[in-house]
Amino acid sequence: MNLPAISHRTSDNYCYAVNEDQLIINLKTGYDVVSVELVYADPFEGGIMGGKWHWQGQRLAIPFKKELEQHIWWTTTITPEFKRCKYYFHLKFHDGQEICYLEDGFLAPHHLEDQATMKQMFTFPWLNPIDVIKTPSWVHETVWYQIFPDRFANGSKEHKPHVKSWQEGPVTNEEIYGGDLIGIIHKLDYLKNLGITGLYLNPIFLAQSTHKYDTTDYYTVDPMFGTNQDLKDLVRQAHQKGFKVMFDGVFNHSGTDFFAWQDILQHGRASPYFDWYMIQNFPFLEQGHRTRNGDYYAFAFVDTMPKLNTNNPEVIAYFMDVVTFWVNEFDIDALRLDVANEISHYFNKELHRTLKSLKPEFYILGEIWHDSINWLQSHEFDSVMNYPLTSAISNFWLDTTKNKYQLGHQVNRCYTMYMQQTNNALFNLLDSHDTQRLINRSKGNLDIFYQQIFLLFSMPGSPCIYYGTEVALGGEHDPDCRRCMPWQSLEKGLYEDISQTIQAIIALRHMNACMQSQHFHFENHFYQLPRLVELLKIDDHGRKIRIILNATDQDVYIEVYETLFCHKYFNHTLASGGILAYEVNLY
Amino acid sequence: MNLPAISHRTSDNYCYAVNEDQLIINLKTGYDVVSVELVYADPFEGGIMGGKWHWQGQRLAIPFKKELEQHIWWTTTITPEFKRCKYYFHLKFHDGQEICYLEDGFLAPHHLEDQATMKQMFTFPWLNPIDVIKTPSWVHETVWYQIFPDRFANGSKEHKPHVKSWQEGPVTNEEIYGGDLIGIIHKLDYLKNLGITGLYLNPIFLAQSTHKYDTTDYYTVDPMFGTNQDLKDLVRQAHQKGFKVMFDGVFNHSGTDFFAWQDILQHGRASPYFDWYMIQNFPFLEQGHRTRNGDYYAFAFVDTMPKLNTNNPEVIAYFMDVVTFWVNEFDIDALRLDVANEISHYFNKELHRTLKSLKPEFYILGEIWHDSINWLQSHEFDSVMNYPLTSAISNFWLDTTKNKYQLGHQVNRCYTMYMQQTNNALFNLLDSHDTQRLINRSKGNLDIFYQQIFLLFSMPGSPCIYYGTEVALGGEHDPDCRRCMPWQSLEKGLYEDISQTIQAIIALRHMNACMQSQHFHFENHFYQLPRLVELLKIDDHGRKIRIILNATDQDVYIEVYETLFCHKYFNHTLASGGILAYEVNLY
Repeated sequence: MNLPAISHRTSDNYCYAVNEDQLIINLKTGYDVVSVELVYADPFEGGIMGGKWHWQGQRLAIPFKKELEQHIWWTTTITPEFKRCKYYFHLKFHDGQEICYLEDGFLAPHHLEDQATMKQMFTFPWLNPIDVIKTPSWVHETVWYQIFPDRFANGSKEHKPHVKSWQEGPVTNEEIYGGDLIGIIHKLDYLKNLGITGLYLNPIFLAQSTHKYDTTDYYTVDPMFGTNQDLKDLVRQAHQKGFKVMFDGVFNHSGTDFFAWQDILQHGRASPYFDWYMIQNFPFLEQGHRTRNGDYYAFAFVDTMPKLNTNNPEVIAYFMDVVTFWVNEFDIDALRLDVANEISHYFNKELHRTLKSLKPEFYILGEIWHDSINWLQSHEFDSVMNYPLTSAISNFWLDTTKNKYQLGHQVNRCYTMYMQQTNNALFNLLDSHDTQRLINRSKGNLDIFYQQIFLLFSMPGSPCIYYGTEVALGGEHDPDCRRCMPWQSLEKGLYEDISQTIQAIIALRHMNACMQSQHFHFENHFYQLPRLVELLKIDDHGRKIRIILNATDQDVYIEVYETLFCHKYFNHTLASGGILAYEVNLY
Repeated sequence: MNLPAISHRTSDNYCYAVNEDQLIINLKTGYDVVSVELVYADPFEGGIMGGKWHWQGQRLAIPFKKELEQHIWWTTTITPEFKRCKYYFHLKFHDGQEICYLEDGFLAPHHLEDQATMKQMFTFPWLNPIDVIKTPSWVHETVWYQIFPDRFANGSKEHKPHVKSWQEGPVTNEEIYGGDLIGIIHKLDYLKNLGITGLYLNPIFLAQSTHKYDTTDYYTVDPMFGTNQDLKDLVRQAHQKGFKVMFDGVFNHSGTDFFAWQDILQHGRASPYFDWYMIQNFPFLEQGHRTRNGDYYAFAFVDTMPKLNTNNPEVIAYFMDVVTFWVNEFDIDALRLDVANEISHYFNKELHRTLKSLKPEFYILGEIWHDSINWLQSHEFDSVMNYPLTSAISNFWLDTTKNKYQLGHQVNRCYTMYMQQTNNALFNLLDSHDTQRLINRSKGNLDIFYQQIFLLFSMPGSPCIYYGTEVALGGEHDPDCRRCMPWQSLEKGLYEDISQTIQAIIALRHMNACMQSQHFHFENHFYQLPRLVELLKIDDHGRKIRIILNATDQDVYIEVYETLFCHKYFNHTLASGGILAYEVNLY
């Protein structure tokens, strides 16, 4: 019995309320465990406490499990009659041995009744509705489109100074190409036709740089992009056409032109805003090394992005006003929080309270690349940018020595890290303004490109297309991943095949509840083909679809007569690089 | 390599800020790991992100560890230069194999530099001061004394109706013996002489029952115990004599005479207080089965203790006023929260905010018997009643088949569950009004009784003596554990030996910083004596004491010339049942 491999705690996502009546209980074990029973009952079934206390739980076999790299993840859902639950696990192993797993350790089953010593069961003491994590109900139905405003579309007829001509080649971070809000408005029908239902805009408020992550003024749209009125028009028209709209909130740091920083530069320690930042020495030493020198903290080591002190109640109050203005003035539906992991939890909780009281179904998305459980459990963010899924998917195609089991383990890891409510609202992406473009990561191979997108679109959560990815726009890491949208080539019909394929994938996501569903299972019918990915997806009514991605270098015979989607599938043969999706219940 | 045994997450108590500058990082492995290195650096050392990113950390061997039943718990403290940290672990195994442990899995060391795939290190993104868990600095120096008011001391000269004569035998929960606040005042010098520095009072506000856990009025002292003025006098005099004072807050449920419940009984669904409780059917069915029938929720299945709805903002506001009154009017220093685990987290966070703003060094103690990490991480309670330590200690003496390694594992479990700040404020106890008396659990054996108390007093946190335990007062489970304090026998000198021994243990706790210290280590010099407990304690200046508890059935020769404390130690021989404590540095 590999007992050290077994773990459970009544914290994190091991045991939590999924709604006002139900608990989800998960257990991690090694691969030597063959069956698990949950033994549970009301904590007070045996009396309150004291010597005569006898407690016997009901037994529930746990049939559901996900396979991880080192563990089996067992999962079940229960409805405690009186909103409270006491439990332990009864495990059976390959070799026939059995053990009970309690909060304070392991016990042979025949020792459970032993009254000589005190024992502690696992306890979920009470299911309080106010503590239940709730995420917006619309997010998993949404297909996002991320727009880097300067490079998406120039909609104004006027000449803009300092603006380079729109072009389809490499770009730098200093260049300005004149994309604007009117441009986005003009393309709403294009996006709607593609199947997009959510717009995620990179920062649009006044800032020095082209990327606008160094905000000067949180209340004024950058004139490069238009006016506050243009922004209102954009959101209004987007709403009319059925889009949700998400802004990018840069609250971890400001630009150096932000009024508070300017006041400090002018008045030094006497400035009332001195504690709005994290300044350790003043006056500052030479520009360019101030963060390294420890003069003040900044985003990374970027002196021009001084870090706001999100521990300071005045700073918190200021930004609560900013987001209130954004919701009231522009009527946005969602906020992506930049460098969300460095902002204080205290700030985040206030943000959650503020935004949810303005709009109960508001979506708060944190930019966090690593394990984010600390930000998801306690009413901070609804979800995070699911970069772990990006790696899980892309690494399989990048490294052809990896097999489908490893892919399954890595994807399962992403969906066993958090609560089910969170999984359903995760922001799934394969590329962004912060990564290499997907077609570049795919080394130009369109089959690999499609397979990754198809897998992304079959995952629980909310998929996002980075502008241009619908036409396989190229680009290496920042700044190259921020090229101009190639409207000219696009209008010439150069990318028709690609964009139709993407459009079809998006359409399937919208039409088929299995695609959106939380329930998935990696299968293994073709065990002799370790890179033939087989994924079963099941909707809430038990309807099933199977998705097969041929990442092997050979063609595979699969007899299907009606497909939901296919790529490189002819004569019942799925070619290397192909995709096949079909309803299982038909066969 | 037992990889499934290895675990770490950047959540819970695996990785957390211990103060504004330092992180504690812990890792759990199987017993096949022989050494661990933490490899860490600033997340931005290698640039911000993107393809050219190279990151190399500094290496830090982790020498400190605690042994658990199935695992080794490795622990280290680091000071990240720029308040943020990225890291992985490099592990070596018994058989010479090595592996690196990253957030997204395990890698052979030579694959770390492989640029083909994306990898995720563990990340602690920023150390925000406002999020750091801080517990009061005075708690670990305090020795508590728990008083069940009706049974401690009757200080009034007047005749009280319905009161039974004070007596030293068994009691019931219905009897009233007339203990009161004046009685406690009269005994303050007795308690001071014993070495007590903190009073924990069971409920004292108006209620029907003798135990007062069914509150009628949170603003009025129960006349059985005296007046609000008596309570003010008690706290004032206690403060003058150097005691801290802790009340018992019963906010999970009220009594049925509480005005809100009475209003509901009168006006039904029309009552403005209807949502102050968790009522599902009205009018109620037969008394005695209302909770079982699902009419309303209650504490356990006790109809006369209807459960308050701590999800309701009005209820929260009401109790914030109550605790504000208690602090302002009576000047208390601490609050023990009854059935704390069933109250909403939302309520608890408000309680924390309210009490800490009134008194920053206020101590909030939750009554939770099980794993409490969910209540300790997010500004709710400073600490919990450490019943897991009660079991760890008592089970070793209850079950003589257990050896000292098992005792060590169980005690270590108690101190690897939470943050170091929490450990330092844990409320350690061996008995209470909710358990069998310690002398009964010890089957009347005073050696075993002393050994457990000595071990408790050497543990990090804050030890508590349940009234009467200083004279080994007997009693089985509730109600028998609530007998009258045997003042008559005590004054006759009947318990002199016992109370002097307890007094000496308390005095050692106060005088010797090693006793209070967080640093302890179970030793194994006498490996051939599996029930000879050897504990090393180290203070912040490196001074060490060794504690030896002879739980074997034989005498053991141990050559020590100066002792800090001893029991049954003569001629360099520690008899069975004996206790020895001495400074190590002398030898």
